[in-house]
Amino acid sequence: MARLGPRRTLKLTIAYDGTRYVGWQFQNNGPSIQAELERALHAITGENARFVGAGRTDAGVHARAMVAHVHTRTTLPAGKLALALNAHLPKDIGVDHSEDAPDDFHSRRDARGKCYRYTIVTGRARPVLDRLYTAHVSYTLDVPAMADAAQHLVGTYDFSAFVTELKARQHHCVRTITRAEVWQEERRVLIEVEGNGFLYNMVRTIAGTLVVVGKGKQRPKWVADVIASRDRREAGPVMPAKGLCLMRVFY
Amino acid sequence: MARLGPRRTLKLTIAYDGTRYVGWQFQNNGPSIQAELERALHAITGENARFVGAGRTDAGVHARAMVAHVHTRTTLPAGKLALALNAHLPKDIGVDHSEDAPDDFHSRRDARGKCYRYTIVTGRARPVLDRLYTAHVSYTLDVPAMADAAQHLVGTYDFSAFVTELKARQHHCVRTITRAEVWQEERRVLIEVEGNGFLYNMVRTIAGTLVVVGKGKQRPKWVADVIASRDRREAGPVMPAKGLCLMRVFY
Repeated sequence: MARLGPRRTLKLTIAYDGTRYVGWQFQNNGPSIQAELERALHAITGENARFVGAGRTDAGVHARAMVAHVHTRTTLPAGKLALALNAHLPKDIGVDHSEDAPDDFHSRRDARGKCYRYTIVTGRARPVLDRLYTAHVSYTLDVPAMADAAQHLVGTYDFSAFVTELKARQHHCVRTITRAEVWQEERRVLIEVEGNGFLYNMVRTIAGTLVVVGKGKQRPKWVADVIASRDRREAGPVMPAKGLCLMRVFY
Repeated sequence: MARLGPRRTLKLTIAYDGTRYVGWQFQNNGPSIQAELERALHAITGENARFVGAGRTDAGVHARAMVAHVHTRTTLPAGKLALALNAHLPKDIGVDHSEDAPDDFHSRRDARGKCYRYTIVTGRARPVLDRLYTAHVSYTLDVPAMADAAQHLVGTYDFSAFVTELKARQHHCVRTITRAEVWQEERRVLIEVEGNGFLYNMVRTIAGTLVVVGKGKQRPKWVADVIASRDRREAGPVMPAKGLCLMRVFY
């Protein structure tokens, strides 16, 4: 067991494959990323510390670079701790970076924004090598139309129409999206959105709404009408969790 | 059960995630891609037909586009059969394309060449989202030096130095490599080789040999010496199976 010293705040950047997890946050009904990290730290230092993430990804959602903070009394240098955590973590979670942060650093409250990517594989052949990280639609999508449609998302709006949970819709749903891009790489259609915060299922509903445009069932401008409606029934379907990945958190 | 008609030869293009398989070919000690395909066809037509692949990928090796042929008496159109096979196959195998071929088409004998890709993730952070499809080296690699080194592989040579099995080395080891490229995409180093045929473990040993150059332990020209030696002990190590993927078969 490593020696303990004064309390430090560590900022960690974590990648994970969400496939077999109930999500970032601890829950009683299955393994979570948070619980795995807390177990790994306990194995190293004996501490029962709490990892706080910049956001709460849902079951099956992946992350290339979630940011979390933890208070610890370990005397290990931050870089060494990342290696030690990795040695105790399952292969589908990896601490990419660990650094000392100001005492009052808070991964969620200090986050200025996030970038999410949603990936769709199009065409009749189903995805095989990327089946766990993409959604599949068997038809082709009009990607330029989707890119046009995405531009209507950029700005500060009440995004109630993109929120599934009634409870969440009763709260403040105004968010700012600063970037929304759609492009194609071979059979993949990639959607990236950046903003100051995202509501429950918002990115997956944005993806589903853009797919409605990509199928030619609505014109790009319709997205502006969906936003203005503030009515969940106007937006497209929620796309599957496995296509979603948290790419970056901005501070 | 579908009706049976006259014998047809089908050419199929198949993607698979080799992680949980003993390889393409049927073996008694675990599941194989070939056995899964044969089981799926049997479920559809009742036939006990044999799928013959263009090559025999090893345990853990992946394919984006393996080509196989099979003789069948099903009356289903080739495209429908692909969908029916997919419905009976596990999610880590997918038939991307199926077409009627000349009666005497033979996936292996008629193949003019193949393209393989080897993918390495570099740097201290371990791969997470692509951990099943890449090898990891914790150091950085000199990619331009590796690309130079790869040029020495292009040509017709006796590649005995790149063959692990003594038995295989006693056979004819002359092969022609027509293309060998190395490039970088973010933290990934990609090695692609195309040629008229590859010996047992040859691509994985080529990757290991290029890594020796990438680490700065040998100069690019050393690869020519390795080939000339025809001595397995001169080449680099065999890299892990999971980094290898059969990209294409040429006819």
